[in-house]
Amino acid sequence: MTAEAPPGAFMRAEILEQPHTLAQLITQPPSAIAALTPKARAAQFAMLAARGSSDNASTFGKYLLESLVGIPTALAAPSLFTLYRRPPRLQGGWVIGVSQSGAAADVIAVLQEARSQGALTLAITNTEGSPITTAAEYAVLLGAGPERALAATKTVTAQCVAYALLTAAITEDAQLQRELHTVPESVRAVLAQAEAIEAAAYRWRHVQRVVVIGRGYPYAAAQEIALKLKETCYIGAEAYSAADFLHGPLAMIEPGYPVLVLLNHDAAGSMTAEFIARVLACGGDVLCFATHQARALLEGMPPGAGQLTVIAFEVPSAVLSAVAFIVAGQWLALTLALLKGRNPDQSRSVTKVTITQ
Amino acid sequence: MTAEAPPGAFMRAEILEQPHTLAQLITQPPSAIAALTPKARAAQFAMLAARGSSDNASTFGKYLLESLVGIPTALAAPSLFTLYRRPPRLQGGWVIGVSQSGAAADVIAVLQEARSQGALTLAITNTEGSPITTAAEYAVLLGAGPERALAATKTVTAQCVAYALLTAAITEDAQLQRELHTVPESVRAVLAQAEAIEAAAYRWRHVQRVVVIGRGYPYAAAQEIALKLKETCYIGAEAYSAADFLHGPLAMIEPGYPVLVLLNHDAAGSMTAEFIARVLACGGDVLCFATHQARALLEGMPPGAGQLTVIAFEVPSAVLSAVAFIVAGQWLALTLALLKGRNPDQSRSVTKVTITQ
Repeated sequence: MTAEAPPGAFMRAEILEQPHTLAQLITQPPSAIAALTPKARAAQFAMLAARGSSDNASTFGKYLLESLVGIPTALAAPSLFTLYRRPPRLQGGWVIGVSQSGAAADVIAVLQEARSQGALTLAITNTEGSPITTAAEYAVLLGAGPERALAATKTVTAQCVAYALLTAAITEDAQLQRELHTVPESVRAVLAQAEAIEAAAYRWRHVQRVVVIGRGYPYAAAQEIALKLKETCYIGAEAYSAADFLHGPLAMIEPGYPVLVLLNHDAAGSMTAEFIARVLACGGDVLCFATHQARALLEGMPPGAGQLTVIAFEVPSAVLSAVAFIVAGQWLALTLALLKGRNPDQSRSVTKVTITQ
Repeated sequence: MTAEAPPGAFMRAEILEQPHTLAQLITQPPSAIAALTPKARAAQFAMLAARGSSDNASTFGKYLLESLVGIPTALAAPSLFTLYRRPPRLQGGWVIGVSQSGAAADVIAVLQEARSQGALTLAITNTEGSPITTAAEYAVLLGAGPERALAATKTVTAQCVAYALLTAAITEDAQLQRELHTVPESVRAVLAQAEAIEAAAYRWRHVQRVVVIGRGYPYAAAQEIALKLKETCYIGAEAYSAADFLHGPLAMIEPGYPVLVLLNHDAAGSMTAEFIARVLACGGDVLCFATHQARALLEGMPPGAGQLTVIAFEVPSAVLSAVAFIVAGQWLALTLALLKGRNPDQSRSVTKVTITQ
């Protein structure tokens, strides 16, 4: 594609590449994963350092590491390392830095400090030879190929898969490993729903703000979709856990308020279905991305004063559904941006690589 | 006050009580703080469980514990304890649950699990005899008196002060202890600026969304102010670290976009001042709450296409400024809610005590 590519051409192409890029990563996992596994098992805690979309993938990583590996996992506050120079004690811990470009200065600073303290360090990046790969003891290269759209897509889902590969290796969970191999297929299942997502975007073409709700494993996907909507459509989009939303923000919902909900087929999904009923009772306009099995949770739900649209697809498992939700959100953001006359491959004021101290 | 109290009467009264409630907490710190200090020093990591405003106070706690105590600190994902029943390993850690009412079921579940695993457990609550006080081994009672407005105010600043008291006790930092004693005075300094805050609210009486920015120690205050604006004014308000905002959301800023910035007099403040210049260049309408000493960072700043309003006040230190910022934000939210014809003491759809599993 050249500079004269139509608006959104890069983002569209990169979204569509995902079944391929993820299949490659899953079938040929980077050797660093097996190499660091014994040390990772001995870590007392983990700390994840990232910004933007990589931070959202790391929230998914936190849920996997805490629930499946059992390791307490914090998200780093980089300013304590860079601006204040008062980092916490990290010896005995496992510190993971994630950066698509491999150039995020504050993420690199966290890894350097962790390594100097004797912590196990890992970089996850899409850019071979980037500074982050030498800052950490181990590096996982995502191999997703160059990402040219401003909005990160294929590198984010690859980061999520990298966290899942690490989790599967540490736990030796054969079921998780099998499920991982069906992730590319589930991305295809989402893309097969492109028309339904486009119709939903058309209905929302005039919205100026939207709330994105997830609970449990899909919470990270809600955060990533909200960021994608903001950076491509310039609309106010905020992600919440369904539980947090009931502590105050529910008061914002008035008739017609657009709410995107991610519905999983697990205990968090049941709670989220109850949340949908409350939003509908307030008159909310709910678009629900649901796993195929979760549709049953919505059967017989009274629409209240609101409106409910459901788009469902097959996923490997409730643990791994986040990748499919993220892809559905990418397509929604792409379509909505184009309907609003924006070019999601570019931005008014943001550059692809943001270096913050 | 009776049921016929004018709109916002409870919230106003509770905001104004803060110099008194905080002075009492600081001069008569709960005995649990000294009692658990030796055990807290031995903890390898900390995990903080809370929802809503208490979660924002806990973000402040994370920054204090990591930067001053040096202990890696995670915010808990309660769904892993309650819905998934796959909690992380917590032995050797220190788990703090925070709940104004002391009735938050998921926070209590985190404490119970942590205690059963042998972790050090602490509850921070305003409600004597509440379930959370027996779930944890230790309990810090805030003693702020009944909170009747829907929007939490005096209990949030008391939670922040409780984290600072814990930090000062563990580190035996005499300077921090001295600075803590000037917190009530700094709250009075903010309230002395009530008219300036009201004038800023009047200028923003028609806004439907606002971005709230902080970096470093005031980041938690930005989160709390955004929540307060949402639950009292029903407007879209989202908090960001200045660093995260540059990774994408900056694209949302168009001429006249309202941005509230918290400006500290430290390294994070210098970075935040550069951020303000970028927002002004995009035409943003910036309201800046600044510490007295931080005003110098804004001298000679070109307004660009935007507008800059600064309201400054004395604070004890850059570490403890968050309490003053939160109080300034409370007054902004109260005024804006009344200007918009809302009663911030009540809500359309949220109750004071929210119990989520």
